[in-house]
Amino acid sequence: MSHGAGGKASRRLVEGMFAPLLLTGEEQLNDAATVNIGGATLAFTTDSFVVRPLQFPGGSIGELAVNGTVNDLAVSGARARAMVATFVLEEGLEREVLEAEVRAMAAALARARVPLVGGDTKVVERGKADGMYITTAGIGSPIEGVRIDPRSVRPGDNVLLTGPIGDHGITILLARSELDLEADLVSDTRPVLPLVEALAAACAPGLRWMRDPTRGGVATSLNELARDCGLAVELNEEDIPMHDAVRGACELLGLDPLHIANEGQFLAVVAPEYTDMALNALLQTEGGEAACVIGKIREHPANAVLVNTRYRGTRIIDMLVGDPLPRIC
Amino acid sequence: MSHGAGGKASRRLVEGMFAPLLLTGEEQLNDAATVNIGGATLAFTTDSFVVRPLQFPGGSIGELAVNGTVNDLAVSGARARAMVATFVLEEGLEREVLEAEVRAMAAALARARVPLVGGDTKVVERGKADGMYITTAGIGSPIEGVRIDPRSVRPGDNVLLTGPIGDHGITILLARSELDLEADLVSDTRPVLPLVEALAAACAPGLRWMRDPTRGGVATSLNELARDCGLAVELNEEDIPMHDAVRGACELLGLDPLHIANEGQFLAVVAPEYTDMALNALLQTEGGEAACVIGKIREHPANAVLVNTRYRGTRIIDMLVGDPLPRIC
Repeated sequence: MSHGAGGKASRRLVEGMFAPLLLTGEEQLNDAATVNIGGATLAFTTDSFVVRPLQFPGGSIGELAVNGTVNDLAVSGARARAMVATFVLEEGLEREVLEAEVRAMAAALARARVPLVGGDTKVVERGKADGMYITTAGIGSPIEGVRIDPRSVRPGDNVLLTGPIGDHGITILLARSELDLEADLVSDTRPVLPLVEALAAACAPGLRWMRDPTRGGVATSLNELARDCGLAVELNEEDIPMHDAVRGACELLGLDPLHIANEGQFLAVVAPEYTDMALNALLQTEGGEAACVIGKIREHPANAVLVNTRYRGTRIIDMLVGDPLPRIC
Repeated sequence: MSHGAGGKASRRLVEGMFAPLLLTGEEQLNDAATVNIGGATLAFTTDSFVVRPLQFPGGSIGELAVNGTVNDLAVSGARARAMVATFVLEEGLEREVLEAEVRAMAAALARARVPLVGGDTKVVERGKADGMYITTAGIGSPIEGVRIDPRSVRPGDNVLLTGPIGDHGITILLARSELDLEADLVSDTRPVLPLVEALAAACAPGLRWMRDPTRGGVATSLNELARDCGLAVELNEEDIPMHDAVRGACELLGLDPLHIANEGQFLAVVAPEYTDMALNALLQTEGGEAACVIGKIREHPANAVLVNTRYRGTRIIDMLVGDPLPRIC
């Protein structure tokens, strides 16, 4: 299961088998690829969704499948322009359950203003899928002036976060009712494009890198950044926004909220002279009211993420190892 | 199961639920959508693959997943230019099985000269998938001069087919060993782009329509054509090429070979004055040696496919109803 968790084992599978055999070019392992076709520069991305349960507080698999692809494009500096979707349905799935997800996708597409232009449906026998799996792929066009490249990140740059972490992962965990916990928490699934656009308008020349910390959480995304830029990321634990319910569930279960999945937040690295403008732009945009600076890029220790704890200690936090929460998206 | 079989129930699901809720524009239900992004005209398509078994004589799921998307673009008049792929893997899948499919994809991508630029992997618990499901999406750029539109089809046009039908479907059926039949038959999975390009070079102005008759077979594709152009398609049964093993298996099982899936053939409708050039172009291209004219477009009976049988009778053949061969691709 950990090969699908988005952490270390996933990265080993991608870097050890998929990338050497399948990727031919100089592609970096970003959320979306950049391709040049017919004179146009495009972003192209895909994701499969296998979240369990299909519906959860604040969202459902159909909504997640649309927002996930819109967001992968957005944090790559692109506006989603067209999407396709496929369904693998389990024989016997109730028509109402399918229709609810089709409607959820339609609503998410309308909210993100992206047309769905094609798709495919396969049906497998009872017991050969878990209700349904949805895969989406999207094409985006570049947002003017934005160029996301971890190699452009410099010591002194600031790390911004758009809002509280862990809502999606902990909501899914609670929705499975494997634990006797209750909390007033909903998934943060939403399109982040309006926030990305606000950021781009305010500080495109100083915007170095973005990533939506889904599977593997903030810690995994920032470890990938640290590795890709060869620098250190230093976080201040007490600056990282988090709902009490997330903090409480994580303490109880021994999970690190920095490893928990998010579906409606993103991280951005911004040059110091643009940071105030960037933060103000997020704060003034709907859904960005909890944005904040959570850390800084340092020269040392190379390739690592450090956390200054609330008790004045410092710890190194690694990518997600193993899979505390399978099938989160 | 029949909702995934590519025949009548699939079409009802698409036209009754997916299309009205999800498709916003004037899209026709073709193998690939046409989108205009950043000043470029692109074709965009996606398919999920759930074939069982994963490997079969002549191919495997990984090869099929690449060729399927290359072919959907090709018969839409586009050259595949970039592809993405996702895997839904069942926990416990042997590494060797996965690696074999990744290598099969790499070989198929190289053969079709398409770069894979991104992907995603999810893992589900044991029993929640059948080894692996693969989804691919592809972007293509238009082949010069080709414009595929069923509404441009006219009475008197000829229907061409690139080679023998039913190889893929019957190979899968035999590979499942549910029947005590053996035959020297392999799947026809291959990229059809070289044949499409040869056809386009020879007769682009007279090339009205193409389709690769996968799920639902030749009969389903031609019924969709008949409906979309409001005309009749008349086939001559004895002109339709077929291996003896396919004919024999179909007779034994009461299946109509016109409903059996193909993965490396396509149908083309060509204006009468271009038909000789079109046929010669196919015959002279590697893999097109068995190409032939199998029928004609007529004015009546509207929206129907007629077959002149080898016994001088005529029958009407409908789309596939039900699902004689589940999980064929």
